[in-house]
Amino acid sequence: MKIRYFDHAATTAVAEEVKKEMLPYFCENYGNASSLYDLGKKSKEAINIARGKVARAINAKPEEIYFTSCGTESDNLSLKGIAKAYRKKGNHIITSVIEHPAILNSCKSLENEGFRVTYLNVDKNGFINLQDLKNAINKDTILISIMMANNEIGTIEPIEEISKIAHQNNIIFHTDAVQAIGNIKIDVRKMGIDALSMSAHKFYGPKGVGALYINENVKFIPIQDGGHQEFDKRAGTENVAGIVGLGKAIEIANNEILDYNKKLLDLRKYFLQRIKIIPYIQINGDLENRLSGNINISFLFTNNKDIITELNKKGICVSAGSACSSGEIRTSHVLSAIGLSEGIARGTIRITLGKENTKEDIDYLVDSLEEIIKNLRIQM
Amino acid sequence: MKIRYFDHAATTAVAEEVKKEMLPYFCENYGNASSLYDLGKKSKEAINIARGKVARAINAKPEEIYFTSCGTESDNLSLKGIAKAYRKKGNHIITSVIEHPAILNSCKSLENEGFRVTYLNVDKNGFINLQDLKNAINKDTILISIMMANNEIGTIEPIEEISKIAHQNNIIFHTDAVQAIGNIKIDVRKMGIDALSMSAHKFYGPKGVGALYINENVKFIPIQDGGHQEFDKRAGTENVAGIVGLGKAIEIANNEILDYNKKLLDLRKYFLQRIKIIPYIQINGDLENRLSGNINISFLFTNNKDIITELNKKGICVSAGSACSSGEIRTSHVLSAIGLSEGIARGTIRITLGKENTKEDIDYLVDSLEEIIKNLRIQM
Repeated sequence: MKIRYFDHAATTAVAEEVKKEMLPYFCENYGNASSLYDLGKKSKEAINIARGKVARAINAKPEEIYFTSCGTESDNLSLKGIAKAYRKKGNHIITSVIEHPAILNSCKSLENEGFRVTYLNVDKNGFINLQDLKNAINKDTILISIMMANNEIGTIEPIEEISKIAHQNNIIFHTDAVQAIGNIKIDVRKMGIDALSMSAHKFYGPKGVGALYINENVKFIPIQDGGHQEFDKRAGTENVAGIVGLGKAIEIANNEILDYNKKLLDLRKYFLQRIKIIPYIQINGDLENRLSGNINISFLFTNNKDIITELNKKGICVSAGSACSSGEIRTSHVLSAIGLSEGIARGTIRITLGKENTKEDIDYLVDSLEEIIKNLRIQM
Repeated sequence: MKIRYFDHAATTAVAEEVKKEMLPYFCENYGNASSLYDLGKKSKEAINIARGKVARAINAKPEEIYFTSCGTESDNLSLKGIAKAYRKKGNHIITSVIEHPAILNSCKSLENEGFRVTYLNVDKNGFINLQDLKNAINKDTILISIMMANNEIGTIEPIEEISKIAHQNNIIFHTDAVQAIGNIKIDVRKMGIDALSMSAHKFYGPKGVGALYINENVKFIPIQDGGHQEFDKRAGTENVAGIVGLGKAIEIANNEILDYNKKLLDLRKYFLQRIKIIPYIQINGDLENRLSGNINISFLFTNNKDIITELNKKGICVSAGSACSSGEIRTSHVLSAIGLSEGIARGTIRITLGKENTKEDIDYLVDSLEEIIKNLRIQM
């Protein structure tokens, strides 16, 4: 059965060009990047080239890029690493209630170690309130971490305004850009971002590799101890093939970003138009400041587990909330935060469009949804 | 130029059969293992199969295996995770001075957090003294971490005796088996191992993936916070292709372990016989209880940077000490610990044999060494 994949926020297929660049680093150029001979230097060079590509994509310096094993590690390393490095200055962190669990649970860990964390609420579209942010700042605030774009509802937060407020108060600003890379053109200098997390598998790169940008003027303490890799900041033999893949993937994503967004916006517009044939639906989140591929939609009087199961039978992949918690469907903390009742949240699915989707895919999706929703509502 | 690779303790090429198993998980079976639809379940199943293979290879239960991003992460997670989980019981840890930096620097971090660490010395062959171990134990000792086999001199520690002493004193025993997997037949139950670290790229698997066995009765606290992956113990989207590769690699390694060791022992014997043509040499470490592929050899009146450089010109890869610190050659902490003078340590290289090496490779290596050492000594 043909697979129609609409869960690009959960993960993406590795692009063929990306895989092609990775392949020589498995069986041929397999040297340890720390080794002194040519086979080792080849790996080192490949890593440096990838580092340059990541730096260029977000207007950072290569020495500000650290490779990690995933977006979650990047989030952990930036939050814990920065918090611990500035502990003498203060122990207060500000984040939002709709962050990814990697941020929220890193904050919980830091609370267990004596840090205080303010979790900003969001409005019905998922935006934090800038006045709330200002009010939350106190003399102990050392770090603000607000995601660039939400993984469930796609809301893009006002990053430049947040970074301005942070810097006016001499506070470091981190953003979880795991969903944003490849979708939003990022310039860390223009946007005033001090630290930024990314994960290759969200932009057609491989799973098992992420990166972290940390401004050269920001200190942080490693969380993984060992050898001298990654400028002494992230020990462990480098995942050369994965890093090469991340580098190629971000290069492609950055080059194609305008066409990619246009394509996804067109497809989403088409979906939103066609989906009107189904009654009692609700689109959640902001429609303007939103990731181009994100659709978060509630089908009243249904439940998402059934929808996903039925769609799966037709070869369609969509998710309920985020992938990280979709194994067990629980009420999404993001949907709760934007005020959805439990009943409506229960009937909510996330459709995230990507590179390979076509209008014909959308037709198949909408037709399938129409049939499935009708049947589910009859059964209720 | 043909590459003759003698640095298998630094890293290995991914075996073709391993790569073949990994490939479908890049562009085809790319689902997020947490997703509910079939594409996600395929990834989940692939991970479970790999988990079973790891468990079988060391006689553990699948639910005792946690996938990580590398051996260094496994070491960090086991030491920090176990230490923090048992902090109320005591705050003392015992390890040895010849551990990998992932262990030594994790211990340093724990010392900064209030733990006390005893670093056991080793004898001239690299063995810890069991009486020293007993003497170091006190009522606060919660964890003993001794590597199964040393990465520089190949010494295999008396694991069963150590685990007995640990358990007689109700202490948890962890072993860094990064160098041992695929070389030593491991049975965690018979050997009394409570926790064990491994890294795929040391046994012909990919870089960027490791595993950690932790006995079901041992508690530990995660160090990477986020989603619910790996039984809530290691957050982050699973590196499916890498995990599949690790599973296949350990399966092959385990199946071939007898032939592999025989082959490497024969090659080493041949090398040790032939190398006698060079005067003023010294083999470091124990010759009996030693990894079959490890040769640590000092060429008096030379320095290893020059040897490595000259060998590299002939397509030969060997290392000075471990790969993790070989980028900058410093006196190895292991060679210092076994009593080598700085002068002798300076002329020491590590040759680690592997799957693809042949007798002809050894001839080429010895002939090259003979010529290079002669020239270097003339220059001195």
